Amino acid sequence: MTTVTRSEFDQGIALTRHAEEPGRYDGDLGAGWQIGGGVNGGLLLAVAAHALSLEHGQHAAHPDPISVSGYYLSASTPGPATVRTEVLRTGRGLSTGTASLSQDGVERLRVVASHGDLATADGEVRTTATPPQLPPPDQCIGIEHAPRQLVEQAALLERFDLRLDPAAVGWALGQPSGQGRIQGWFRLADGRQPDPLMLLLVADALPPVTFDLGLPGWAPTVELTVHLRAKPAPGWLRVVHATRNLAGGYFEEDAEVWDETGRLVAQSRQLARVPRGQG
Amino acid sequence: MTTVTRSEFDQGIALTRHAEEPGRYDGDLGAGWQIGGGVNGGLLLAVAAHALSLEHGQHAAHPDPISVSGYYLSASTPGPATVRTEVLRTGRGLSTGTASLSQDGVERLRVVASHGDLATADGEVRTTATPPQLPPPDQCIGIEHAPRQLVEQAALLERFDLRLDPAAVGWALGQPSGQGRIQGWFRLADGRQPDPLMLLLVADALPPVTFDLGLPGWAPTVELTVHLRAKPAPGWLRVVHATRNLAGGYFEEDAEVWDETGRLVAQSRQLARVPRGQG
Repeated sequence: MTTVTRSEFDQGIALTRHAEEPGRYDGDLGAGWQIGGGVNGGLLLAVAAHALSLEHGQHAAHPDPISVSGYYLSASTPGPATVRTEVLRTGRGLSTGTASLSQDGVERLRVVASHGDLATADGEVRTTATPPQLPPPDQCIGIEHAPRQLVEQAALLERFDLRLDPAAVGWALGQPSGQGRIQGWFRLADGRQPDPLMLLLVADALPPVTFDLGLPGWAPTVELTVHLRAKPAPGWLRVVHATRNLAGGYFEEDAEVWDETGRLVAQSRQLARVPRGQG
Repeated sequence: MTTVTRSEFDQGIALTRHAEEPGRYDGDLGAGWQIGGGVNGGLLLAVAAHALSLEHGQHAAHPDPISVSGYYLSASTPGPATVRTEVLRTGRGLSTGTASLSQDGVERLRVVASHGDLATADGEVRTTATPPQLPPPDQCIGIEHAPRQLVEQAALLERFDLRLDPAAVGWALGQPSGQGRIQGWFRLADGRQPDPLMLLLVADALPPVTFDLGLPGWAPTVELTVHLRAKPAPGWLRVVHATRNLAGGYFEEDAEVWDETGRLVAQSRQLARVPRGQG
């Protein structure tokens, strides 16, 4: 007998094809991915994109999410979840479909996404973007230094090996920089190496940038779109989150994810609601 | 008898509620909005968001698009079009729904969007974004100076009063800057003033930033998300389009739209395919 140990992330996004309903996949949202009572929005996006990867795998060789847009409809909870997919178009380079993630008949997340094959991507790169400058991981701030109150509300932090840039954690000491920027190193605690589905989690893994504006509390995501730009190399990821415009009760949060070779592997933007009340 | 003259844009996005099919709206994509044989992607997004504005108007006071994400499935052509909407959630501040725009039974565009009411938006603004520096409109480059070949392929340019920053039009003279940035002043030629639906058009109205990288030709949009951040004041809009990462056959294009008071009224990002062949 062999014991196969799956990574926590692969367990988190595991899906079973429904025997009788075409396009349906069933999963279980683990309690380990909770943040503030709900399940992390990046993990939900990865679950939905995973269902579409499986669905497009049947019809076309388009296993990788290339662009994934999710609208968050209601707060998800740990437990069973159903993803219903619909293929809208199967093209030569991209397949596009929708995924609806629901629990007990209540829709949590609606996704539209295009999948393709990052392994066959044209090699040309012309970029003016530069990776964030960070001290090495062992000079950054790990979760062991995070406020107790934060960690208790965020089981998912135990799944992460997250090391924040000391220059961007003043908020944890009551001294937010006001710049609206948080950055650091990221890898999964159990050593699972990055791939495109995991990057969907990473794009929403850091604390909300509103912390750095002196606005603590939950910042519910309205919409999150992630563009996957290359297959990530194994190793650490560098992640930077920033906002430039908080107005009318909403703010945008842009994330970039860079791999250990210095390649920009994912870009994302979300619109989120400004936290109410506290701080 | 009174003759009511509607603006070209309002005619372009006009919709009739279908008498028998709930959630269905019928329109007509005018030939005047063509670019390179297809209908402009920003106009299509405005048509789809308009249908959802009408649909949410029936159920909730959420007339304005706040976040609109569109996936482009096939090239649209001038002529009749049908938009089928589905309301996913009606909340206190936002209503979320999907819109599918099709022609002759072929889906052109799938949209998910959240609508709300920008008139009642919380007034707080904290922004580090700054408007693009531009010479005044009369010192910028109008369409009358555009290459004949470009204008012939783009009927929609006649609807626009677009004045590009002279520093960002080297590509039109065979000398692209290589920076991946195009900016200028925008208003509609017939004087129709900006509103949130019009901003969806504006976010995709400038030439593709790939022109400024020395890559002329059509850059098909995979996905376009626009966040509406405030009601625009009457007058000129300042628009800047930029890309930072062209890789693997795709590039992102970020647009910002600023109104005449210097307020950031829309932010957008799209993923588009690098033009093939020419140049």
